[in-house]
This record gives sequence, C-alpha cells and structure tokens, in this order.
Amino acid sequence: MFFASDNGAPCPPAIMDALIRANEGYTLSYGADAPMGRVRDQIRALFEAPNAQVHLVTTGTAANALSLALYTPPYGSVLCHRHAHIEADECGAPEFFMGGAKLHLIDGAHGKITPDGLAVAMAGAGGSVHSVQPSALSLTNVTEAGTVYDVAEITELATLAKTRGLAVHLDGARFANALAATNASPADMTWRAGVDVLSLGGTKNGLLGAEAVVLFDPAKSWELELRRKRAGHLTSKMRYVAAQMEAWLDGGRWLDMAAHANAMAARLAAGLADVTGAELAHPVQANIAFVRLPDAAHARAKAAGAVYYDMGGGLCRLVCAWCTTPQDVDALLDAFRG
Amino acid sequence: MFFASDNGAPCPPAIMDALIRANEGYTLSYGADAPMGRVRDQIRALFEAPNAQVHLVTTGTAANALSLALYTPPYGSVLCHRHAHIEADECGAPEFFMGGAKLHLIDGAHGKITPDGLAVAMAGAGGSVHSVQPSALSLTNVTEAGTVYDVAEITELATLAKTRGLAVHLDGARFANALAATNASPADMTWRAGVDVLSLGGTKNGLLGAEAVVLFDPAKSWELELRRKRAGHLTSKMRYVAAQMEAWLDGGRWLDMAAHANAMAARLAAGLADVTGAELAHPVQANIAFVRLPDAAHARAKAAGAVYYDMGGGLCRLVCAWCTTPQDVDALLDAFRG
Amino acid sequence: MFFASDNGAPCPPAIMDALIRANEGYTLSYGADAPMGRVRDQIRALFEAPNAQVHLVTTGTAANALSLALYTPPYGSVLCHRHAHIEADECGAPEFFMGGAKLHLIDGAHGKITPDGLAVAMAGAGGSVHSVQPSALSLTNVTEAGTVYDVAEITELATLAKTRGLAVHLDGARFANALAATNASPADMTWRAGVDVLSLGGTKNGLLGAEAVVLFDPAKSWELELRRKRAGHLTSKMRYVAAQMEAWLDGGRWLDMAAHANAMAARLAAGLADVTGAELAHPVQANIAFVRLPDAAHARAKAAGAVYYDMGGGLCRLVCAWCTTPQDVDALLDAFRG
Amino acid sequence: MFFASDNGAPCPPAIMDALIRANEGYTLSYGADAPMGRVRDQIRALFEAPNAQVHLVTTGTAANALSLALYTPPYGSVLCHRHAHIEADECGAPEFFMGGAKLHLIDGAHGKITPDGLAVAMAGAGGSVHSVQPSALSLTNVTEAGTVYDVAEITELATLAKTRGLAVHLDGARFANALAATNASPADMTWRAGVDVLSLGGTKNGLLGAEAVVLFDPAKSWELELRRKRAGHLTSKMRYVAAQMEAWLDGGRWLDMAAHANAMAARLAAGLADVTGAELAHPVQANIAFVRLPDAAHARAKAAGAVYYDMGGGLCRLVCAWCTTPQDVDALLDAFRG
Repeated sequence: MFFASDNGAPCPPAIMDALIRANEGYTLSYGADAPMGRVRDQIRALFEAPNAQVHLVTTGTAANALSLALYTPPYGSVLCHRHAHIEADECGAPEFFMGGAKLHLIDGAHGKITPDGLAVAMAGAGGSVHSVQPSALSLTNVTEAGTVYDVAEITELATLAKTRGLAVHLDGARFANALAATNASPADMTWRAGVDVLSLGGTKNGLLGAEAVVLFDPAKSWELELRRKRAGHLTSKMRYVAAQMEAWLDGGRWLDMAAHANAMAARLAAGLADVTGAELAHPVQANIAFVRLPDAAHARAKAAGAVYYDMGGGLCRLVCAWCTTPQDVDALLDAFRG
Repeated sequence: MFFASDNGAPCPPAIMDALIRANEGYTLSYGADAPMGRVRDQIRALFEAPNAQVHLVTTGTAANALSLALYTPPYGSVLCHRHAHIEADECGAPEFFMGGAKLHLIDGAHGKITPDGLAVAMAGAGGSVHSVQPSALSLTNVTEAGTVYDVAEITELATLAKTRGLAVHLDGARFANALAATNASPADMTWRAGVDVLSLGGTKNGLLGAEAVVLFDPAKSWELELRRKRAGHLTSKMRYVAAQMEAWLDGGRWLDMAAHANAMAARLAAGLADVTGAELAHPVQANIAFVRLPDAAHARAKAAGAVYYDMGGGLCRLVCAWCTTPQDVDALLDAFRG
Repeated sequence: MFFASDNGAPCPPAIMDALIRANEGYTLSYGADAPMGRVRDQIRALFEAPNAQVHLVTTGTAANALSLALYTPPYGSVLCHRHAHIEADECGAPEFFMGGAKLHLIDGAHGKITPDGLAVAMAGAGGSVHSVQPSALSLTNVTEAGTVYDVAEITELATLAKTRGLAVHLDGARFANALAATNASPADMTWRAGVDVLSLGGTKNGLLGAEAVVLFDPAKSWELELRRKRAGHLTSKMRYVAAQMEAWLDGGRWLDMAAHANAMAARLAAGLADVTGAELAHPVQANIAFVRLPDAAHARAKAAGAVYYDMGGGLCRLVCAWCTTPQDVDALLDAFRG
Repeated sequence: MFFASDNGAPCPPAIMDALIRANEGYTLSYGADAPMGRVRDQIRALFEAPNAQVHLVTTGTAANALSLALYTPPYGSVLCHRHAHIEADECGAPEFFMGGAKLHLIDGAHGKITPDGLAVAMAGAGGSVHSVQPSALSLTNVTEAGTVYDVAEITELATLAKTRGLAVHLDGARFANALAATNASPADMTWRAGVDVLSLGGTKNGLLGAEAVVLFDPAKSWELELRRKRAGHLTSKMRYVAAQMEAWLDGGRWLDMAAHANAMAARLAAGLADVTGAELAHPVQANIAFVRLPDAAHARAKAAGAVYYDMGGGLCRLVCAWCTTPQDVDALLDAFRG
C-alpha cells in the first residue's frame, strides 16, 4: 500500500531489459549512440514534429529549469501557478538556471491557471525599466493538484500568453497521464496548442531517471546543448538514458502505464465516496487524489502499512503508479473505512 | 579496438545485476532508500572517515561544480591546472555553480601542478578588493594527461594551499585508477593529505552514471544538499544510482577494474616502444596514453577499425577501460606497426 | 508644483558647497580619503555603534541588493512585503546580487508586515531540501505606502524573525523621514531593535546620489567590500560621495530636511479633507500621500502644472521633498478644489 | 607630486559649475532630464552615429561589465589581454554580470593584443559542447600598460574577431587620451573600425564619476536599460551625471584635458632619459609611464613627497592627470635625479 509518490515505484521489466540490451559493446558517448538517435525519431513521430529537437536529462527539475532558461533572460519573469513544481519543489532551480529571473505566481482553483488569472497577471507585469519583464508562461499538466488541462484550455492560455509575446513551457512530468486522461494527441496538447517547449517526464511513470526536453523550435537546440552541459546534465553514457525512454515510448507503453495509474486513482476516488468523512480536495482527473479524512481513518491506514504524504489538517496526497494494483487500492479503502 | 574513452565501454554484469536487484518493490525516494544508506556506510569505511558525508550525482561535472561551489564564493577563485577538466571540458559549469567565480590557471608539465607553480599562483592572487580572492585548490587525479599524483605530492600541495587558507578539492573522476596506480589507501590520498572534498567518479570505471561527492567536513552537507537539489541533481529514484555504486565498491571491484585498465595501458605503452616513430607525450601512469604517431600508423589503425581521439599534429589519446582486453591492445599495436 | 518624486528635487546649497570643498587637491581613491573617514565616524556616533561598518554606494538599489546578498545564499529567500521596493521596483536586482535566491512576498495593509503575516510566512517557508530556505526579513521604513513602522513594531518583527534565524535588513531609502516621524533614535530603530544591516538613503532626501550600507556586524565588512567592487559600485572618487553624506548628516540637516518634507505632506493631507471626493488610500505618516480624487480634480491640477504619478483608477501618489513649500502644497490643493 | 592615479585628481571648475547649473529646480528622474538628452545628442554628433544609444553609469567597471553582458551569454567567453582591467582589476564583475561566462586571456607585449595572438586564441576556443563559446573581443585603449592602439590596429583586430562572429568591445576608460594620442576621430576608432560597444570613460579624465556605454547597435538599448537597472546602476538623479559629461564633452574639453595629461607624461618620459638607471618598461604613448628606477631614486622621490604606485622590483607606475603641471613633473624628475 505505497501511495507516497510515483517516484517510489519500481520500473517495469521491459525497461530493465532495455538497459541490459543497451549495455552491449562499446559506443560513442554524449549522445552519439544508437538509442539516442532512435528516441529522437520516436518523439518526432509521436509528436508529428519532424523538426523538433530532443535532449535527454535525468531529472524533471533539470528539464524544467533548462527549458525556462532558454526563454527567460535574467531580467525576465515566468508566470506560473502558485503551487507549480517549479515554484514550490525545486529549491530555486529555475532562478538558478535563468540567472536570477523571477517567478510571477498566479492563484487558481485546483492547481489550474484560468484565462482571467493569466490576464490579470500579465496586466500587472513589466511595463517599465523598474520591473522584470514577463517572458514565459509555464503550465503544468497534470497539475500539482492532480487536475488536468484539456487541449482547449491549454490553447486558450497559450494564445493569450502569446498576445504579450510570452513563450509557453509545459511541465509534463506527468504528461503521459494528461494524455491518457484526455485522449489528446501529443501534438494537439503541445505545439498545436502553442507550446514552445515541453518537459516530457518519464521518471514518474516507470523509468529509472529519464526526461526529455522537447524543443518545437529547433533553433534553440544548440543553446540547450550548451546550457545542459554547463549544468552538469550532459550524461556521458547517454545510451542508458535513451534506452529507458525508447522502451517506454515503444508501442504505446508510456500511455498504457499512465492509463493504468489513472484508472487506479479513479477507483480510489470512487471508493472514497463510501468512506465516512472523506472529502476530495480536488477533482481526481489523473493518477493523484488529495483527500481529507478523519484522524481515525488515517490511523487505521497507517496501522495497516499504508505509506503516503500527510499535508496537515487531515489532508493527504495519494499517488497511484503504473504498478498500483486494484488490491492495493481496495486494501487502502478498507483501511480508511475501518 | 575502442580506445576513444572509458565512457564508451559497457558496464560489467555485476552492476547490471545490482540494478535489477534494486528494482524490487517500492521505496522512499530522494535518497531515503536502503542502497543509499549502505553506500554511505561503505564509503565511510573505505575512507576510514566515519563522519564523512556522501552525496550521489550522475555526472562528474555535477560532482566537481557542486564541490567547488561549497568552498568558493562568487568573489573567489579556484586555482587549477590549465588543462584541468573543470577548465577545459565542463563548458563553464564551475563558474555557473559558483556564481561567477574565476578559475586561476596554473601551468605544469604532464598535467601536474608543482609546488613552485602553486606558490607563484598564490603569490599573484588576491591581495586587494580589486581582484577575486583565492579560495580553493582543485587537483585532478588521475590528471588529464594520464599522469598520477602520489600521496606525498598531494600532501605537499594541499599543505601549501592551506598556508593561504585555500580549501582543497580532488577531482577523482578516475580516482580508482589513481589508487590502483599508487597502492595508496583512500584515506591517505584524501583527507589525511589535506583534501576537503572529493569527486569520486564511478562512471568512467564501469558505472552507468554514478559519482559521489565525499565531504570530509560534514558541516557542509546541508548546503550541498540544497545546492544539489537546486541544480537539478537530486535524483528522485536514488536507489538506482546508489545500487550501482554499492556494487562497484563491493569487494574491491572498483580497484580491480581500475587496476586492469591501468595494466592494459601499461601493456600498450610497452608495446609502443616497438612502434617506429611512436613517442609518448606524457608518462603512462594510469589507464591513458597520449602518443604521437606517424600519419601512416594512424591510417592503418583507423583502417583496422580502431576508434580513438586525434588531438592534431599526429598526437592521439588512447584510453583503456575495465574491459579492454590484451587482444584489443595487441591488435591496435599491430595496426600501428603495420 | 512638483510632487512626482523626492528624486526630482534639487539638492540644497550646503550639499553643493560640500562638493566644491571636497574638490580641493589630490587624494587617494576608492575610499581612502578624508571625507569617507569622517562619514564613518559620523554614522558610528549617530547610531551609537562604534564598531559599525559603513560602505557608500550611489543608488538605493545597490545598497539593498548588496545588503541582502550578505545574508541570503543563492538557495535562500528574503521575506518582504508584496509591495516592497526590492520586489516591485528594482528589476530583480536582489535576485541578481543574491545569485538567484527568492523573494517571499507577504501581504499586509498599508504597506506594512504584521507579526501574524510574518508568522504565517515563516511557517510556510523552507523545511525540506525541495524549497529555498528563509534567510532574511527585509522591512522598509518609510514603507512604499508612505506609512511608518515605529520602534516597537520593528522590534517585534525582528524578534520574531530571529526565532527562525533570519537576518533583518532595513531598507531605509527614507530612513530620515521615518526617524523624523517617530522621534526615534537611529540606534533604537536599527540595531537595538534587531536590525543587522541598514540601507541608509540620502538620495531621496537631498543628495545627488549617496547611500550608506551600515553593517552592525563588522565581520561582514570585507565581503561587502568585495561584492560592492564586483558589482561595479566601488566609486573611485569616493570623496564626492562621502562629502555629500557628511554635509547631509552634519548638524542634523538630514533630519531637518526630512521633518520639513513630512510636515508638507501633513499639510497636504490636512488640506485634502476639504477636497470634495478626495480619499486617502493610506495614512499619511511621512512625506508621501496616496489619494483618490475625482477625474475633474486631476484635470484641474494637471492644467495648473502639477506633476505627479497617476496610479490608475483616480489614485495618485504625491511626494513632498525637503524643498517643497507651503505655497506649493496650497496651490495643489487649490487646483484640486477647483 | 601626485602620480598615483588620474582618479586622485580634482575636477576642473567647469565641471563643478555644470553641477551647480544642473541643480536648478525640479526635473524628472531616471534619465528623463534635459542634460541627459543633450549628452545623447553630443555623443551622437561627436561619433557621427545618429542612431547610437547612450547610457550613463558612474563607474568604469559597470560600463565594462554591462557592455560585455550584452554580447556574451553565460556559456560564452570574452577574449581579452591578460592584463586587461576587466580581468585584473574588477573583482570578477564581468563574470558576475555575464552570469558566469569566462575571460579567455591573451598575452602580448606592452599590454596589446596582436593579430597573431588573437588568431591563436580564437583557434583554441570553443568548437564543442564541452567548452564555452567565444563571444566577444574586448580591447582596452589606452591599454593598462599605457600604450595605444591606433585605428589601423583596432580595425585589424576587430575584423579578425568578426570572422569568428565575435562582438567587439572597447574599454575606453582613457578613450580621450587614446584619441589625443592618435588624432583619430571618435568614429574612426570605434564603429568604423568594427567596435560594437564602447565604454567611454570620463572619471579618469576629470569627472566626479560619469561613464557612457555607447551602443552602436541601438537594438541592444532596451536590454542595456534593464541590465543597468537590475545592477543598481540606473541613477535616479541622472541630471548630475549627465551634466558632468555634457560639460566635459563641450567644446572639446575632454580632448584638451587628455592632450595635456599626455603631454605631461611625454615630458616625464623625456626627462627620465636623463635619470641614471631609469628604464621605461613600456613605450609612453598616453598619460602613463611605467619605469624601473634604482631604490635610491625611489627613496628620494618619496622623501620629497611624491605619491605613486610601486609595482615591486623597482618598477613604478606614474600617471599624469588633466591638472598635472610641468612643475610637478620637473620636481619629480629632480627628485629621481637626486
């Protein structure tokens, strides 16, 4: 009954097998290997973006901070939700990589920015030499609240951002879950909607540590290369990173895994309807549920061996992974019910 | 016949097996896993340093840049060899992580800093508010020229550095090779010699991507944690990084692998004595040979399928790995001989 | 009728005379001049702080950003009011000087942080490696809203901040106005209240461009020196900066000038009571009034030649300077009244 | 007998008078004042560059570091002479402003870079993702050795730099002295020679503290504005900075003052020919002489009250200012002669 994070799950056998296969013989380093070439082609095909550039790193924080640094000068700012991972959980990595630019925080229910919220933020940003200049909008899908933007919402926000000349970044640490939740195509949820750069996360969905920065403007690629190296994020033995992602994307595995995790969260949410005193803090739209529960329910779950994050005040976060089983979910619900 | 880099070799089965074992079940992330605890204990024992702090990252550039940032303020400087990896091969990562501090370059034959060279550099550094203040000495062992500092040399340099209050960093991307070359103990080559922080490299010696920052001053640990996170180098699924390093250190495997690579380079150097026109640019003391060869020799080797770096002017770099075979070496020598 | 900013006023003859006197003969540069020594002594005496260190710069932004950089590492944060000058009007200078640390914004009526507001902010800050660590509290007195903290308020906030280990910075761009408004002593409003570093502003109160960073912890002085030089803020011909500040502090001139400006704002506020439709947005406690006025009143004032900032929605900012006359104030009021 | 620095001299009465005149009445701040507009026009006319943008700061370090930051990304490098002020005397300000880019040092006799030296440096710079990318060439005229590049030399170096795509910065802390020494026009020595941005220094030639960044590419102006503000170098009461520079440029005063200082240095150099044991370390081409003298000569001069910098080994630096008199020079020579 492990619901602490999708980061705590093991990796599927297919990924480990891919690592073993990638370990054959010698190869050139720093990305001049065969798996890297294949991943690039896969992503271009999946995103219907033949000119997209793909750069792999091993953490989502690196993918986000590097992406933002491409589009935000030191005297700029990134507009994002107050609870965005880039603001709340990266110890200032974006500011570090951007050379001291600001994050401009936007409130919004259930982790989502609304067009009105964005419009107000843009109206209050920049305008004179005395303040930093708004440079980018960063959206997160799946959001930190476990909710999902659909394609129309992303398109509306990105379109609005571009009226002010902002670049649009999508933090897709759980992008596969967002796709699975909406049945959208990768292209529709990104470049067709106005997204300039995507952090495509694999680590939270079954990889040891592999994330892709997908640049829909290939002209930014060389700068990304230099910034990645300079940040210590150019992996010498790239084949092992690339092999993970290749196997993950292969045959739709990434989406199948995400869909399963989403389904487990939906099962959990449905079951919580029968738990006395349980109250969802946000709609459950992907693989995460935030729920308020009576103390006794928490005590029973902990006693039964459940592992998850307490947020204080009875609120907890429950995250389902690619390998969460219906039995895990039901056992947790049973413990909550007492 | 792959001599391009130790980064191009595969990983030994024991490492892959360790990854498979680490993949069992759920675990907490960000380093609160069992393998991380065991690696910390291993390193403390191997280095006879029960209070040392151990922080894993996935690249040597990250290990170096984070280490230096602990000891060098933005208005400081790091004294290092002109050809040090931190100067020549990290795209300015140290400057990035240190917030703009300078590297102060010292010349020296065969990649090594001499006490005289260090004394001159220290005499010319700092002294007024108009210049950056010397803050750290960074040594590399094995050096970029493939030579090795012995314990007495490191001790002399570190002692001299400390007369000026400099911290001492050791870039040990090939630390195991240096130990194997000198039969020194890890403690003697580091903290007993005056080293404050070590970048302990596993990637060039058989790991997929695992390096340890070993802090002999545990008071620096929390700052390292924050800087690591902020740089995007806190791996969420740390168990896979830790498991690599655990298996590598286990039973002296790291030293055995390094000793083998060193022996293959020695075999190569010995064989080059019989190659007409071959001339070693530096003494071969670890697993790397720099050699000047006639164009015809290069042409024959390339035709025979040898892969290695040309440095221009007939000079090439030949790197042996844990899995380089005597047959590989002899085949290369045969090709050079024609 | 110039009420746009205290930055728009000329300097008093005594200051210009001091410049002329300082222009005699040769002197050593970079602060090794006689006026600099005298200013240091003056400030130590006025602040009853014989060990305080005094470093002059020419802009308030530099004074603030340098002060904060001494106490906030790149992985830290500064707690401040949402409308603080360091957040709203310095184009990210604090983030630049601190190496990318964050500002953590606190709301509060009339530009002031309350103990409750600070407590909530501290409770939500830091706590894990995933977020920046709260490092300093920055207060502004006079606030951006024209209100004033008294000594008791500063003491309460600073004391609370220190329970969390935060350093305390006071942005005193209008410190003289705050002293004049409260009749507090410089010592009581700073180090006795728990302030570690003060930006003592002269420019808004009659100087050409001179601000002092006053360090109550002299151990920080050398770092300040290096950071100041590195930021291009070590003035070579320091005598001209020091001479301004010397003449300003001499014989209480700074406080007299501030008291006059405050009195003019009080006269303005009193007169506004008779202006139909006028409404003060904040209490007028120093030399600035924020007032909402009917469009017709604004139109009449502009037609009469009044210069001041429109904030939108009928709100304007009216700033009095050391040389604002009762006639200026009355003429403005007459125009508003129509 | 003050020869320590041109920074130690007083300012001419015309400059002080200009300050007094600029102190009349109220004006808008941050550069929206009349003197700033006039200086912009003056510089455009003097440089025959109607589209040039002019931004004033108060220190040469700020002018240099801001200029370089416009043209060098964090992953870039600036090629400059080993003894350039930006390397040796600015405590890392360029690295700070550029976000951690490197300075790539070039040796050359008498403080000057030669085309061969530049070609070698360019050939060794950049080329792969593992190193920073050369971005700018910075020349200094007058050099730190007191020598002068003529227009042909600057043109040759700038032309060579542009073959590699480097921007060209000219550190003109003593630009007036360089013009006076060569009788070149401002345009010929800058944009016609290939210079993209000039630090035009007034402080060392009679101003209290005023330097201009002259941008020959006006498209960079807004970025410069933001970076200047962010660095705390946007002076609020700009009129006092602008008024200095206006009076300095007016009627050729800047060139007259520089020519006088140069003439005094020439008189000094000529006189040194008669001083037993005196040896010039560099040709005296502007207002600075570096000379080796016997200990006894130094002792006599110091005893006579001469003030100048000892560089060690009998070498000293003697700087003439706009107000150095023939009597000063002759008295110093007399003291040297004994």
